[in-house]
Amino acid sequence: MNLTILGCYAATPRTLTNPTSQVLEIKNHMFLIDCGEGTQVQLRKHKIKFSRINHIFISHLHGDHFFGLPGLISTFRLLGRDKEMHIYGPKGIKEAITLLLKLGDSWTNYLLVFHELSSKKSELIFEDDKVTVETIPLNHRVYTNGFLFKEKLGERKLNVDAVAKYKVDKAYFHNIKKGKNIILDDGRKIENKLLTFDPPAAKSYAFCSDTAYKPDIVPQIKNVDTLYHESTFLESEQHLTDRTKHATAKEAATIAKNANVKKLILGHYSTRYKSIQLFKEEAISVFENVELADDGKLFNL
Amino acid sequence: MNLTILGCYAATPRTLTNPTSQVLEIKNHMFLIDCGEGTQVQLRKHKIKFSRINHIFISHLHGDHFFGLPGLISTFRLLGRDKEMHIYGPKGIKEAITLLLKLGDSWTNYLLVFHELSSKKSELIFEDDKVTVETIPLNHRVYTNGFLFKEKLGERKLNVDAVAKYKVDKAYFHNIKKGKNIILDDGRKIENKLLTFDPPAAKSYAFCSDTAYKPDIVPQIKNVDTLYHESTFLESEQHLTDRTKHATAKEAATIAKNANVKKLILGHYSTRYKSIQLFKEEAISVFENVELADDGKLFNL
Repeated sequence: MNLTILGCYAATPRTLTNPTSQVLEIKNHMFLIDCGEGTQVQLRKHKIKFSRINHIFISHLHGDHFFGLPGLISTFRLLGRDKEMHIYGPKGIKEAITLLLKLGDSWTNYLLVFHELSSKKSELIFEDDKVTVETIPLNHRVYTNGFLFKEKLGERKLNVDAVAKYKVDKAYFHNIKKGKNIILDDGRKIENKLLTFDPPAAKSYAFCSDTAYKPDIVPQIKNVDTLYHESTFLESEQHLTDRTKHATAKEAATIAKNANVKKLILGHYSTRYKSIQLFKEEAISVFENVELADDGKLFNL
Repeated sequence: MNLTILGCYAATPRTLTNPTSQVLEIKNHMFLIDCGEGTQVQLRKHKIKFSRINHIFISHLHGDHFFGLPGLISTFRLLGRDKEMHIYGPKGIKEAITLLLKLGDSWTNYLLVFHELSSKKSELIFEDDKVTVETIPLNHRVYTNGFLFKEKLGERKLNVDAVAKYKVDKAYFHNIKKGKNIILDDGRKIENKLLTFDPPAAKSYAFCSDTAYKPDIVPQIKNVDTLYHESTFLESEQHLTDRTKHATAKEAATIAKNANVKKLILGHYSTRYKSIQLFKEEAISVFENVELADDGKLFNL
């Protein structure tokens, strides 16, 4: 699982900083998460193939998470895309994109499939044989979801030596990898655990931005491998969080600690601070394994 | 009069090239013309003060001329703007911007004044004591206008020596600068031309993008100082102009020649060509004074 940060700064795009967008590579999917203005240029800059993106998840309809989407959709058309594109985002996203395409008389040649979200409870919004994606309802000024990406546990790994020792016929391998015990032709029953190893751990990634401190997300993200949590402010500006519905680095770290996640990535920094290191310093006093998102940074999760 | 090219390439924004946007500085106005994705970053990069922009002219509602506008409008809000902002563009622009602001619950603190355009004939859309702006109806796939910016002829310049020689009282200066003849107290009539010099020439700038070759714009832009005319293609791709409603460099030069403009600036280049010099080479065979727009280039007109 790889995470490429295309942009992770709050508010407006600037010469050297980009608004929120990231690409999660998970089990052969390239999921685009949020799409601030300039995302398509960031995709080019970081050499991410446009054709590999088939699913776009939009947390909320503030410009710094969304205003790059109309242009990206147009660019897919210019690049000759013909595959379906699935877009998951708040109710209204379809109306907005459709109106912009209509005004430009620039309908796509490919099918845009909108999955509009309006539930205030977590929903399973994507599932295939290897991955699930659930919404994480957040607390922001407008309707906002985070997203929880989970790999499914794969098949058990065949223990090649054990299989040879018991002279197990290949015909049984499929069931063995599914975790079943087997009975050999001579009647002996062999426990699955003697023939297999545990599958590689299923990884998980939770994206939570934008949101005020919301402790009730903790049960849903319990034990995830990696949590990206917004930290627009430091505690010195905690008084601004109630009005803006953003979180501080310390609050993000508290969520990480209480959810017992393995790693916390901070992002969505206000540009009022001199250095993003300040966010790490504040968070690390609460939770040890903190990393800082930055534009262009690649996390091998 | 100064023209800053923020972006002048066709279609999608790329790492090193930007879609259409330019700033015309004319008689203390900073007029923003078109607003492709990334325009606000280009404004920052070229140190143009956001607060000086009070009028935005949008030629048409294709993304590469328009998708930077929602983000720019949001940024003006974040910067604490309270002055009115006037936006001139095709009918539908108000609905689009209003919907995006509504979805983000991000209404501006300042007044957005939309001047929606739908006439197929040229209209006077802005006038103050020093400048006029008229639409130039163009021929593109969607409803599109170019814009003709004209300085008004200023007051005549007082000939200080002549005024002293005739002992003209200061009380007459106002009328003299307006071009009136005067009668002195002793009854002598003095022709205005003996007391004044011609005012500085009133300059004009015509922006024509996007458009197919449209000879009937020639009378309207006759003798303008500077014409920016799109040249998406070279003549080798002339067969594409009918479907796409774009022009070639040679066609742009033909308009410039027939309109007897002083200078032609080419732009809106397709990125299929190796060098934009090819556009100049083609145009210069028809019309001598050709310059190439390029992102970040400043023209002192």
